[in-house]
Amino acid sequence: MLNIKITGSGYYLPSTIETAEEISKKIDKTADWILSRTGVKERRISDIDVDQMAAIASKEAIGKSTPPDLIINASGVPKQTIPDTSVFIQKELGYSGIPSFSVHSTCLSFLTAFHMASSLIQSKQYHKILIVSSDRGSIGRNFSEPESSALLGDAAAAIIIEKSKNSGIIDYKMETFPEGASFTQVKGGGTFRHPDNPKTVSGDHYFTMSGPKIYKMARKKVYNMINNILLQNNLNVKDIDLLIPHQASGTAIKAYSKFGGFNQNKVMNIISEYGNCVSASIPLALCIAIEKNKINKNDLIMMIGTGAGLSVASTIIKY
Amino acid sequence: MLNIKITGSGYYLPSTIETAEEISKKIDKTADWILSRTGVKERRISDIDVDQMAAIASKEAIGKSTPPDLIINASGVPKQTIPDTSVFIQKELGYSGIPSFSVHSTCLSFLTAFHMASSLIQSKQYHKILIVSSDRGSIGRNFSEPESSALLGDAAAAIIIEKSKNSGIIDYKMETFPEGASFTQVKGGGTFRHPDNPKTVSGDHYFTMSGPKIYKMARKKVYNMINNILLQNNLNVKDIDLLIPHQASGTAIKAYSKFGGFNQNKVMNIISEYGNCVSASIPLALCIAIEKNKINKNDLIMMIGTGAGLSVASTIIKY
Repeated sequence: MLNIKITGSGYYLPSTIETAEEISKKIDKTADWILSRTGVKERRISDIDVDQMAAIASKEAIGKSTPPDLIINASGVPKQTIPDTSVFIQKELGYSGIPSFSVHSTCLSFLTAFHMASSLIQSKQYHKILIVSSDRGSIGRNFSEPESSALLGDAAAAIIIEKSKNSGIIDYKMETFPEGASFTQVKGGGTFRHPDNPKTVSGDHYFTMSGPKIYKMARKKVYNMINNILLQNNLNVKDIDLLIPHQASGTAIKAYSKFGGFNQNKVMNIISEYGNCVSASIPLALCIAIEKNKINKNDLIMMIGTGAGLSVASTIIKY
Repeated sequence: MLNIKITGSGYYLPSTIETAEEISKKIDKTADWILSRTGVKERRISDIDVDQMAAIASKEAIGKSTPPDLIINASGVPKQTIPDTSVFIQKELGYSGIPSFSVHSTCLSFLTAFHMASSLIQSKQYHKILIVSSDRGSIGRNFSEPESSALLGDAAAAIIIEKSKNSGIIDYKMETFPEGASFTQVKGGGTFRHPDNPKTVSGDHYFTMSGPKIYKMARKKVYNMINNILLQNNLNVKDIDLLIPHQASGTAIKAYSKFGGFNQNKVMNIISEYGNCVSASIPLALCIAIEKNKINKNDLIMMIGTGAGLSVASTIIKY
């Protein structure tokens, strides 16, 4: 076990709400179509940038305690290419001198960072780590692609982890399958479709995904991962007190009950209110679960999700 | 100590050479001006993208051994925004199912990833980790900014780390100072200067830096960090068998001898041949040092550098 505990949590949800009804006009579909395809009734739209969103969530997580000794930005899309977003988050927090960097595995960035940060604490490299995920998917919506643009929402969420004796990460697994690389993309923003490249088109700067292809590929891989991680830790689906899945889509979340065997009441489902918030979905669901007292000491929590790649990751923690 | 050893190394240098003479015409300066300002006689220019460059270096590092159980892309600029570049590197390597993600702290990405990967091995999360840095700075050159465009070159470098008994990371330090955030930037590529933003201008997609401001801020911070890391480990400058600095600029590398007290023969200096290769500079210098037998078993190696942020990091390893 990687012995850590979550000693702070916080999130930021922009106040502006955009309903399915409102977005339906932009994508030439009905609100009913949106609900049946994505399960998203409404999402939040931010008018401040990812670093400011992250700082609000982080301040709540830090509260009145001492500053962290490491800041990890674990988001899907950066503020800008250089410097990495962690620098701007630290600036917004009013700190200087704290080591900071970014970890990127799209929607799984939070799980990746949570695992690595726990390892850094276990090996006594840091004492108090801030992990923050902040994504403003609304900026990258391509309204000519109705499904993905009706899915995305904006949010930020942060946690603080410190060492512990009796709680922590029991297990962590991740797999990346590049054969699914084309299923979820923002092609621009790097060396491949640089603005100087004559092949670059405006659509390259938006989010594009093939929901059905991802779902088809991911369902089996996620199912196998759940079975393996439970089996290897001598656990049963019923031993998991709360499942916190990435809020990929309404269908994807329902699959954990329909095919995964998890009781619907034990699955965090916040997609209808907030949409798919990219990297912020898992930590947002975690922070809301903590806030609503859905997690008790010694509970077994499974966090799981899929990300562009296609990647699948899951972790079981003893809270 | 984080007990690891480097069990493989490899690099890729594109065959196309661009001399100071050749670039002097593009930036309306003389070759002498370039040499005195940057110390870069020539650099390599890649016609393949960062993922392919990374895969060539990685294949050399892996050799005929078994595949790694984790792939970390530790680069400055991505291939595209989503998925993260590690996915494309894994694709080029012909693997599938290996967990992969990216770590980003610009020119310090390699040091950050090396530290984290060593922690992951120390805490028994993985056995064999591939860390690869690949940057194609030539794509982001703004020829109306002579100094930075005469500085950048393209390269990739990779290492494999595994657990060890008697070698590893003795210490690691990093500090990030957001008051230097504006000194080194690529403003585009994220949410801040998205192509849809009317404020976005073409210059936002290029690298921009203020060399003198960075040098002024960094020199003192680097100097203090060297003193602190040596003092805290009861070491003296003379105990370090080889210093591998980020190849920031000719002046920056010379400062390690001029002000830092390191014997010039013990400082890896490859900037005149390859330029500043962003994240790939430190691992490239490390791989070349290994190849040229400049490192012996039990040697004490210090790797150190500055990155956009402004960040400073250093590590001492027992080889």
